[in-house]
Amino acid sequence: MKLHILGCTAATPRTLANPTAQVLETKRHMFLIDCGEGTQVQLRRQKLRFARINHIFISHLHGDHFFGLIGLISTFMLLGRTEDLHIFGPKGIKEIILLQLKLGNSYTAYKLYFHELESKETEVLFEDDRIKISTIPLAHRIYTNGFLFQEKETEYKLNIPVLEDLKIPVVYYPKLKQGGDIVVDDLIYRNADLTFGPLPQKSYAFCSDTKYYEAIVPIIANCTALYHESTFLEKDAALAAKTGHSTAKEAAKIAQLANAKQLILGHFSSRYNNTDWFKQEAITIFPAVTIAYDGLTIEF
Amino acid sequence: MKLHILGCTAATPRTLANPTAQVLETKRHMFLIDCGEGTQVQLRRQKLRFARINHIFISHLHGDHFFGLIGLISTFMLLGRTEDLHIFGPKGIKEIILLQLKLGNSYTAYKLYFHELESKETEVLFEDDRIKISTIPLAHRIYTNGFLFQEKETEYKLNIPVLEDLKIPVVYYPKLKQGGDIVVDDLIYRNADLTFGPLPQKSYAFCSDTKYYEAIVPIIANCTALYHESTFLEKDAALAAKTGHSTAKEAAKIAQLANAKQLILGHFSSRYNNTDWFKQEAITIFPAVTIAYDGLTIEF
Repeated sequence: MKLHILGCTAATPRTLANPTAQVLETKRHMFLIDCGEGTQVQLRRQKLRFARINHIFISHLHGDHFFGLIGLISTFMLLGRTEDLHIFGPKGIKEIILLQLKLGNSYTAYKLYFHELESKETEVLFEDDRIKISTIPLAHRIYTNGFLFQEKETEYKLNIPVLEDLKIPVVYYPKLKQGGDIVVDDLIYRNADLTFGPLPQKSYAFCSDTKYYEAIVPIIANCTALYHESTFLEKDAALAAKTGHSTAKEAAKIAQLANAKQLILGHFSSRYNNTDWFKQEAITIFPAVTIAYDGLTIEF
Repeated sequence: MKLHILGCTAATPRTLANPTAQVLETKRHMFLIDCGEGTQVQLRRQKLRFARINHIFISHLHGDHFFGLIGLISTFMLLGRTEDLHIFGPKGIKEIILLQLKLGNSYTAYKLYFHELESKETEVLFEDDRIKISTIPLAHRIYTNGFLFQEKETEYKLNIPVLEDLKIPVVYYPKLKQGGDIVVDDLIYRNADLTFGPLPQKSYAFCSDTKYYEAIVPIIANCTALYHESTFLEKDAALAAKTGHSTAKEAAKIAQLANAKQLILGHFSSRYNNTDWFKQEAITIFPAVTIAYDGLTIEF
C-alpha cells in the first residue's frame, strides 16, 4: 500500500496548504479519500494518474473534506472518462452533486454511482479478492465515517526449491498455498517446511474528523498504519472538545490502544506555526509517529 | 479601476492555471467576478484583502466559473466575517449554496443575500453615487451574463487659482462642479474657463462565456476596457460555434464594433501552448490587445 497525502490542513485552504485529500494506491486500485477544494490540482501536481480513481470515499460534509469533489467529477467528464465512478459518502452528497450538474446542464458520459451512508455501525463498502473496505463510525459535529482498508489473507508463498527437491507433485501446490499441510505417499509434510508462510496482511485506517473516541479501537485494532486527525495540541484540549476534534496526545492514545504499527498525524489547525509540536506531544504516548504534509508518500 | 486576473483558463484547473475569477477594485469597492475552484487561494496568493469583497458576480453555472464560491463563503464564515455578502448569479445558485451549508450544518454568521438573475435583457444590479453595475446578456450554452461596471459622471474639477483670482464667491462652486456656467454681478463666466472639465468616465465590461454575439455591442459601447473570452483560435472556429465560445478574431471584432479602448483576452483552451497566438490573431482586427494571465493587474 502506498499512501499519498494531497492535503492535510484543517478548515480553509491556504497558499501552501491544502485541505484533506489522500490517495491510497494498491496494485489494482487507486482510492481517493476525501476531496477538499483543489484536490484535482494536487493530483496533477503529484503526477498521479488520477483517471485510475474509480472509488472515492468522503468522510463527512464539511467543506474542507468535499468541496473539490464536484470539480473532479466535472474534470473527469471533460477528459472524456467512460469508466464507472463510485462515490461513498454521507446521505445528501448525491443531491449536492446532481443539483450542480443539472443546473450547469453538464451530465457525465460515465456512470456515477452514489453509495450514501447513514449507518452508525461499521459496514463493508467494497470487497474483492484482495481488499475489503469498511466504515469506521467517528464522533464529530456532523455524521462522519473513517475508512478501513484491509488486505485479505494472502496466499502462502511456496518454497519452490524445497518442493522440487522433495519432488512434491504440483497437484498439492494449491493446498499448500492455502496454508494446509499435505500427505504424500503416507508421509506428512507440514506447511511451515514447504512455504515461506503468508505475506503479512496490511491495513490502513483513516480517521478524520473525530473527537477522542475509543469506540473505534476494536475496529482498527492492529492496523499497519493509522491516520488520525490532530487538529489541536493538548493545551487547546478544551477547544478540541468543543469543536469535536482531537489533540495529538489523544490521537496517540488511540494508536496505542489499537496497537497500530504506525501513526500518521494530520488535519492541523493553522493556528500552529510548527507541526513538529504535534510529534513532540504524540511520541510521549506512542513512538512511531509521522507528521503528514502535502506531497508526502508513505509505503507500508 | 484596477483589475486583478486570478484565473483565466477554460474548463479545468491546472497546476499553473486557474479557472475564471477576477477582482475589480475601485476606491470604495472590491468586486469579485466569477469564482472558479481555487479562487480563495488565488486571492491569498495575490495578497488581496479579500474580506473587503461584499459583492460577487457569477456569470453562469458552469463549474469553471463558480465551483470556488461555496469554499469562499465557508472561509468568510471561518474567518469570523460579519459584513453582509451579496451574490449575483443565475437562478439556482442560492439552492446550490444553501444545500451545502445545510448538509454541513454550517451556517454563516453574516447575512448572505442572493440576487438571482433570469432576465434576458440588461438590468442594473448595483448602483451608488459612484458606480453602476449592469448585466450584459450573453449567448452561451446555458443562461449567462457578462457584467458592465460604469463609473458615473464625476464632478467637474474646479480650477481654484483662477476662481480665487477672479474672486468668485464659493457659493457658486457647486454649480460649477455640476458643469454649469454662472452669472456673477451680471458677468457671464463659462464653465470651461473655470474648471478642468469632468474627469473621464471609466467602464469595464466582462464578457465570458459567450459565442460571437453582436447584440452586446450597444451595451458595452465605448468601454474603457473589454475582457472578452477567446477560448479558441480562428482555425477552430467550428469548435467555437459548436460549444458556444468565441475565437480571438471574433473577440477583436466585438471590441472594434463597440469602440472599446482596450481588449483583454482570456478563457483560453488548454489545447494551445502559447497564448501569444491569440494576440497575433486579434491585433489583425483591433490594435490594443492584452493577453490575460493569472496574477496580471491592469489599471485603467
